[in-house]
Amino acid sequence: MDATATLDWDAAFGRRVGRMGASEIRELLKVLDQPGLLSFAGGIPDPGLFPKARIAEVTGEILGDGALAARALQYSTSEGYAPLREWIVRQMARRGVDCGPDNIVITAGSQQALDFVGKMLVTPGDTVLVTAPTYLGALQAFNAYEPRYDHIQPGGGNTTPAAYRAAAAEAGGRIAYAYAVPDFANPTGQSLTLAEREALLDLCAELGLPLVEDAAYEALRFEGEALPSLLALDIARAGRIERSRVIHCGTFSKTVAPAFRVGWICAASAFVRRVVLAKQAADLQCATLNQMIVHRVVEAEYETLTARAAATYRGRRDAMLTALARHMPPGVTWTRPEGGMFVWVTLPEEIDSQALLARALDAGIAYVPSCAFFSDRRRSSALRLSYSLLPEAAIEDGMWRLGGLVRATLERGGAA
Amino acid sequence: MDATATLDWDAAFGRRVGRMGASEIRELLKVLDQPGLLSFAGGIPDPGLFPKARIAEVTGEILGDGALAARALQYSTSEGYAPLREWIVRQMARRGVDCGPDNIVITAGSQQALDFVGKMLVTPGDTVLVTAPTYLGALQAFNAYEPRYDHIQPGGGNTTPAAYRAAAAEAGGRIAYAYAVPDFANPTGQSLTLAEREALLDLCAELGLPLVEDAAYEALRFEGEALPSLLALDIARAGRIERSRVIHCGTFSKTVAPAFRVGWICAASAFVRRVVLAKQAADLQCATLNQMIVHRVVEAEYETLTARAAATYRGRRDAMLTALARHMPPGVTWTRPEGGMFVWVTLPEEIDSQALLARALDAGIAYVPSCAFFSDRRRSSALRLSYSLLPEAAIEDGMWRLGGLVRATLERGGAA
Repeated sequence: MDATATLDWDAAFGRRVGRMGASEIRELLKVLDQPGLLSFAGGIPDPGLFPKARIAEVTGEILGDGALAARALQYSTSEGYAPLREWIVRQMARRGVDCGPDNIVITAGSQQALDFVGKMLVTPGDTVLVTAPTYLGALQAFNAYEPRYDHIQPGGGNTTPAAYRAAAAEAGGRIAYAYAVPDFANPTGQSLTLAEREALLDLCAELGLPLVEDAAYEALRFEGEALPSLLALDIARAGRIERSRVIHCGTFSKTVAPAFRVGWICAASAFVRRVVLAKQAADLQCATLNQMIVHRVVEAEYETLTARAAATYRGRRDAMLTALARHMPPGVTWTRPEGGMFVWVTLPEEIDSQALLARALDAGIAYVPSCAFFSDRRRSSALRLSYSLLPEAAIEDGMWRLGGLVRATLERGGAA
Repeated sequence: MDATATLDWDAAFGRRVGRMGASEIRELLKVLDQPGLLSFAGGIPDPGLFPKARIAEVTGEILGDGALAARALQYSTSEGYAPLREWIVRQMARRGVDCGPDNIVITAGSQQALDFVGKMLVTPGDTVLVTAPTYLGALQAFNAYEPRYDHIQPGGGNTTPAAYRAAAAEAGGRIAYAYAVPDFANPTGQSLTLAEREALLDLCAELGLPLVEDAAYEALRFEGEALPSLLALDIARAGRIERSRVIHCGTFSKTVAPAFRVGWICAASAFVRRVVLAKQAADLQCATLNQMIVHRVVEAEYETLTARAAATYRGRRDAMLTALARHMPPGVTWTRPEGGMFVWVTLPEEIDSQALLARALDAGIAYVPSCAFFSDRRRSSALRLSYSLLPEAAIEDGMWRLGGLVRATLERGGAA
């Protein structure tokens, strides 16, 4: 025996770690802190929108009251802070969802909700249906549970339920669930139409699947009519939430502040009960103080906060669309989001958006190339821009730089 | 197609959910809120020890400063708040562990550290070595990753490394890691001797295993000489932390306040780097505000806090040991912890501690029966008492009630 033999960590890791690799994008984007860089990479709320004074005020009230402070700092239930769950019940009702506290569990942001979805529903080898592109963080959360991916095509496509099922069976598993971001999707900024929502519910009903609705951006609509959530539509079909297949994931990260790490799942209690056990095993509970602060803030001014955020982001979206029209050469197209934080830009196909990123960073701008949002990491000429963080003049400057870079690259025949 | 067909959630869950069942203990203990109940069940810190004034003060400082507040509320790195990680580096050094910030990742309490351990190291069917009894929450965290368990016997036993390995292989996997709580273990209150620590490291070296050190109670020693942590001992063997096999899990839950959900892993950077990716996938990061508050509190008064907690818990342990000696009939034995929160009581073997619990709750006292702490849920005459939450007079009263119940049960021949 060699008592000083070094452990081989690579051999010590379990099988699933092979699916949890470092992202080359993340490595490139480590330079985001460099001075003068205009970052359109992260989906990061403007900290100027955080209700700092209100947060300071309610936090002072909680910590200044002995009984409240003891409650805020002590162990509590894995389900989450009851008054916050009750507020969410009322908020869901305003959006057409009739539910009760047993349908709500508080999670560490919607990211943890996605982790629990994978943990509860995926057996290794199962298939998860996602759009292509889809939210990078959802792929990261699900990957730990070793799924295979297949693609849903909300705009129509010729894959039949039987074909999905056969492909999953051939891969050695079943279809575990479908995942979608119906409003202002990350990364495309696009929303599902009512017909697309109904078609997605039809598909999931035919396949007998849970449908995971990522509603992270739902509250940030600044244009157009709000459409019913997938959960509201499914309750209309099924009669009540206990018969619904939709797992609705919400968050306060984009409306109050991300670093509280407070989000929620709203779903049939048969699912929520199990998630509570998963929550207890994973981290016992969310921080009670944070839940109490968020509750008091949203109780006081949720509508004001979302309206202010929507107005700010609308101005920035306008600035970005205007600047793209002004600075992009012919052949470049982009989406026109009605809310949220993202525009999806498609460059002429001879440009590889990942290869272009190094040059973009040299030019002082950052974005996320399309490959990050595909389960197969395929490279393409598309990229995601976020307009949430920078003021309008900086957006104009950044699109001018990006436009120049695209023109120069095209002049060289597309090689970045 | 029946678009209103209800989803069968039981069929929708993945395989691992079968290992994540509800605990009957938890169901029984839902009555803990009943008025007048003396609960010795939870390992819950006394909220009177929370540094409420200091927490209110530093929180006010953070939220009252625009730049600090923006930082406290915005997305940040998955590794955790750098000044807190640097404080932990200095604290680990005081305990004989030479490490750097790259060896530290902040987790949502040590519970999340245990979840990540299972997530990173277990492939379904692998074996995890635990003591019997062991920490209930560790079993819950690990179970989600579908391990088999085998038992380490720190006090000596005749299972050889080859026998462990053969049993794991026969079960279709390898041995993934060993897990131990070296100081004032949950649930027994007992600590490993220096010889037992070295023997455990020997075993892990022979088997080529990571060794998970749960140091949740380490700072709460109120008697006897502190022994080196498993990590410190392994670094002494291996030369430096990068060559160590020990994954050290710490927490501020027992020393500052549990509901901040701030803990840490200290280990070789090859492991920590991977955990950072798991953290990003699981919940992005711990709440920044909470990390900033904890950092300022421990920077100001960690030694004072731990000394005050140790003094309080020492008085309560004394009260419990005195009351047990006074009220328990012959044939009852118990441990004598030198720190932490727990005493492990072994009743005469004809008593089933789980069956007794319903009667104990009727008598107005609660504890956790031994079966909760065994991976095979085996029932026995043992139970865990926590002395952390109740004042000394209530401890005396509770032990008087428990003693009466044990005597009455013995008079009926042991049937609860």
